[in-house]
Amino acid sequence: MKNFIYNTPTRVYFGKGQEDNLGNILKEYGIKKVLFHYGKGSIKKNGLYDKVINQLNASKIDFVELGGVEPNPKLSLVLKGVKIAKKEKVDLILAVGGGSVLDSAKSIAVGAKVDFSPWLFSIGEKKPIDHLPVASILTIAASGSDMSNSCVITNDETWEKRGFTSECNRCLFSILNPELTYSVSPYQTACGTTDIMMHTLERYFSDINESSPLTDNIALGLLKAVVDAGKVVMEDPKNYDARATLLWANSLSHNTLTGLGRDYVMSVHQLEHELSGMFDNVSHGAGLAVLWPAWAKLSFKASPERFLRYSYEVMGITKTNNSEADILAGIAKTKEYFKSIGMPTTLAELGVYEDSFEKLADNAMFHGKRVLKDIVTVDYDMALKIYKEAK
Amino acid sequence: MKNFIYNTPTRVYFGKGQEDNLGNILKEYGIKKVLFHYGKGSIKKNGLYDKVINQLNASKIDFVELGGVEPNPKLSLVLKGVKIAKKEKVDLILAVGGGSVLDSAKSIAVGAKVDFSPWLFSIGEKKPIDHLPVASILTIAASGSDMSNSCVITNDETWEKRGFTSECNRCLFSILNPELTYSVSPYQTACGTTDIMMHTLERYFSDINESSPLTDNIALGLLKAVVDAGKVVMEDPKNYDARATLLWANSLSHNTLTGLGRDYVMSVHQLEHELSGMFDNVSHGAGLAVLWPAWAKLSFKASPERFLRYSYEVMGITKTNNSEADILAGIAKTKEYFKSIGMPTTLAELGVYEDSFEKLADNAMFHGKRVLKDIVTVDYDMALKIYKEAK
Repeated sequence: MKNFIYNTPTRVYFGKGQEDNLGNILKEYGIKKVLFHYGKGSIKKNGLYDKVINQLNASKIDFVELGGVEPNPKLSLVLKGVKIAKKEKVDLILAVGGGSVLDSAKSIAVGAKVDFSPWLFSIGEKKPIDHLPVASILTIAASGSDMSNSCVITNDETWEKRGFTSECNRCLFSILNPELTYSVSPYQTACGTTDIMMHTLERYFSDINESSPLTDNIALGLLKAVVDAGKVVMEDPKNYDARATLLWANSLSHNTLTGLGRDYVMSVHQLEHELSGMFDNVSHGAGLAVLWPAWAKLSFKASPERFLRYSYEVMGITKTNNSEADILAGIAKTKEYFKSIGMPTTLAELGVYEDSFEKLADNAMFHGKRVLKDIVTVDYDMALKIYKEAK
Repeated sequence: MKNFIYNTPTRVYFGKGQEDNLGNILKEYGIKKVLFHYGKGSIKKNGLYDKVINQLNASKIDFVELGGVEPNPKLSLVLKGVKIAKKEKVDLILAVGGGSVLDSAKSIAVGAKVDFSPWLFSIGEKKPIDHLPVASILTIAASGSDMSNSCVITNDETWEKRGFTSECNRCLFSILNPELTYSVSPYQTACGTTDIMMHTLERYFSDINESSPLTDNIALGLLKAVVDAGKVVMEDPKNYDARATLLWANSLSHNTLTGLGRDYVMSVHQLEHELSGMFDNVSHGAGLAVLWPAWAKLSFKASPERFLRYSYEVMGITKTNNSEADILAGIAKTKEYFKSIGMPTTLAELGVYEDSFEKLADNAMFHGKRVLKDIVTVDYDMALKIYKEAK
């Protein structure tokens, strides 16, 4: 088991009606002025926008607003947010929405403390040492951004999508009310479910020479709970306990808990970032659903025991005498599962064809500047193979 | 699923050699003077005491010392610590040792901020609102006190043992090096393993009308990992990964993670506190090992489905057509497991006989002032039944 630091300072307020405590929570933290950051207006339709404004007014907390965050949040809006945060001297960024709003807020939060573009953090040229606190009211179970240390931004000049990790990216607090996710569309719910699974899958299938049994048991238990809940919400979108399971799994799956004791590189995430970075219509979760089975088929031989456990304990494959067949059945069943909840299973379904694969692979390797040391090393050739397998 | 607040601010430094960063970590937090609190000298024998002193000196952090914490930590020493902490104006209590040292440190930490005895917190007459920060270097996997919000103290005038929970009881940081637990005796290792299991068992078998599947999967996965690792360390006390599993499970099992979404009362813990409070030779873990199977036999009918999952998934019982037999087999196997790692299975083995049961039951019910609303309500009669079943 590798050494680790476990740092999850985000205080989580989980359950029905927790957003009605927003004002009190902010006051408890001594917050006087916030930048209220949100997306393209769905919170205005469902009443959450008004609730937040009422909470802020009732608690006499001053605020400025910045809406308009898009999926794959853009650097241009981040820079606008940084300008506002500095000018208005806000002392917290309040992100109300999904993972994109949160990532945009995190980038603003580190950008507000420096006199250069926070894109330099995204591309690893600078490391943040300070940040404004970020708080969230999450409206979709997916990215786990509310407890994670990561932040992914798309540069809308170069169309590069880059993530960076830093303890500065941890939220101060997160309000998670499963009922706020009832109205998420079936497609976005499925994308989110896939993303949650993938945060743990990519940790579980990594650093395979280390032994970390407690982490593994938690990882497999989380995956099983997510698979089960994902099925339920497709049939019954207002099932509280299933929505709650997905929302809590969203946070736990990406706060590091499910990978402690191992290193991980998240190759499939890296390959997907290029996809949804280059093709703005591609949802992150949908891209992952297409790429993971392809990655798994090309990598399982490096770690048959772990793939077997996954097949049996998460995918419910019945044990036979043929381990390889059992593993392939587990991968196939994962693909079927994704299909059953409405995810694509080929890149073609996403409108991405073979003529883009070389550029995608080259981008994913930062134009020859990196390889991903996963259980099977992902270099340019392997990346190309994976995109082709997923075509 | 019930609403919850998840608050785990303790930063955990896990792995080999982490104690060698103590000075840097304290400096990072701006700490200038600490009260170095420890037990009856085992850290002097194994060199940890010298390491800590060297770290403090090398980092120019001023300190005062208070050793002498006993198992079932005593109020009299806490009061001494409070006096020192106030007089010396320390800004952190550094607990180096096991759960007893930590609980003593936590009581000092809240006591240092008030002008009355912190025993009033223990008996619920006052609620703490402020505290000195507490940090720990843990030397035994057991109580989970390093991430928990609980603190248990024994009043050595009245011989009452009382626990209270408060977010003030959360440590600032915790250093967990599995190698520091290699020298823990087999008996104390087994007591610790039992205590870790019990923190999750008592959460899992509670509030049975709520559904919290992610929590349940994590709970069962943790229990399985602990049972497996507990066996390994009995054979091979220097098995790093097994010691690491127990040490990390120690923290996760009692930081609330394994019970989120349900309420819990921890009846067996309450019944055990009276036991080790009244009989100073009784280790908490040993008391729990004796009492839990008795409690389970008298309670399982209220929640057969959950007991069945435990039998199959943790205890590895093979499914038959007779559910009740499967449940009883799971409870019997738990008892066997405890016995196999060296735990007692009867109160008589602990030197506690039938003539004490009425007093124990009366104490546990706070002399008629409370009942425990567990899956089967534990009132005086039920408490007495449990002690008798365990005789």
